[in-house]
Amino acid sequence: MDALNEAILTRGKGIGSDIVKVDSFLNHRIDVALATRMGQAFHDAFADAQVDLILTVESSGIATAITTAQAFGNIPVVFAKKGDPATMDPNAYTAQVYSFTHKKLNCVRVSRQYLEKGMRVLIIDDFLANGEAVEGLRNILEQAGCECVGAGICVEKGFQPGGAKLREQGIKVVSLAIVDAIEDGHIILRNQD
Amino acid sequence: MDALNEAILTRGKGIGSDIVKVDSFLNHRIDVALATRMGQAFHDAFADAQVDLILTVESSGIATAITTAQAFGNIPVVFAKKGDPATMDPNAYTAQVYSFTHKKLNCVRVSRQYLEKGMRVLIIDDFLANGEAVEGLRNILEQAGCECVGAGICVEKGFQPGGAKLREQGIKVVSLAIVDAIEDGHIILRNQD
Repeated sequence: MDALNEAILTRGKGIGSDIVKVDSFLNHRIDVALATRMGQAFHDAFADAQVDLILTVESSGIATAITTAQAFGNIPVVFAKKGDPATMDPNAYTAQVYSFTHKKLNCVRVSRQYLEKGMRVLIIDDFLANGEAVEGLRNILEQAGCECVGAGICVEKGFQPGGAKLREQGIKVVSLAIVDAIEDGHIILRNQD
Repeated sequence: MDALNEAILTRGKGIGSDIVKVDSFLNHRIDVALATRMGQAFHDAFADAQVDLILTVESSGIATAITTAQAFGNIPVVFAKKGDPATMDPNAYTAQVYSFTHKKLNCVRVSRQYLEKGMRVLIIDDFLANGEAVEGLRNILEQAGCECVGAGICVEKGFQPGGAKLREQGIKVVSLAIVDAIEDGHIILRNQD
């Protein structure tokens, strides 16, 4: 997606060999016009998938999940929660997700009542690296008897194994931008045309 | 706001004397049409405030922050982060916020580069109870030399002191719904007309 690629190149930052810092427009400060266009792009990619619900995980996936849901005509969003808040329904589907960014194992959970058997669910997330978050959400969807129609990812790290792993399993993964490498602070993007 | 009041009464749940559970439409599963209307309502309430930026705190404030920013013509959103992720800029404004829900002290932080001196900032959050989150965000805005034009809150717990405390300080607080009490599981809403 041209607008996202341009934002990554002009406003993103490559750090070391594997960190793509995009918190100036994606996951700390949010460029809302860009988020809205990304939601439209995810809609266009999954327009024929009869999506009932968008599933993401807090926090950085929420913005694009909302704009995607809007593009689908205001279908509901559910965001999986991490940890164990006091107000959380104990009757929840849970999965373990290792966060390489935060270097810890998170428990993600979705209240059972918000996933109905047979629902067609599109997973949205800001990043795909090792695929842990998407795998955790798919695990939850399987427990609920929902069908995962695919995953819409803002930025895929093409040099990490998550995308290949998911596609090998037959999952439709649509990444609006794919970073192939970070070299001397420069972000190298894959040409997806 | 009628649509939100109705959602609280028909889809919310009062638990004990102080928990308003609205995770069926506000902070776990999100009713995106309602979120979009709430964003419009916040815009209407602060239309004359020359808002440059929306500030919220992860995670539950993000959805409404996005829809509010859209209503203002796609101004940027910044969400304060909790804790200390590895990719977080160490050069950040920070404030301590006690979460009564999670019963712990959070450090919330905003990277310095995303708050410019003189910016007019509208705080958006899903809940206002003791006012800790809004106070923490105001503290950060003060450090940055930004002006807080007010706070837009989806659900205020009118029986807890946050709203009164902020209004006494001259802060414009706009709450789309105010819960006055929870009695035998019934949520009693304030009539704001």
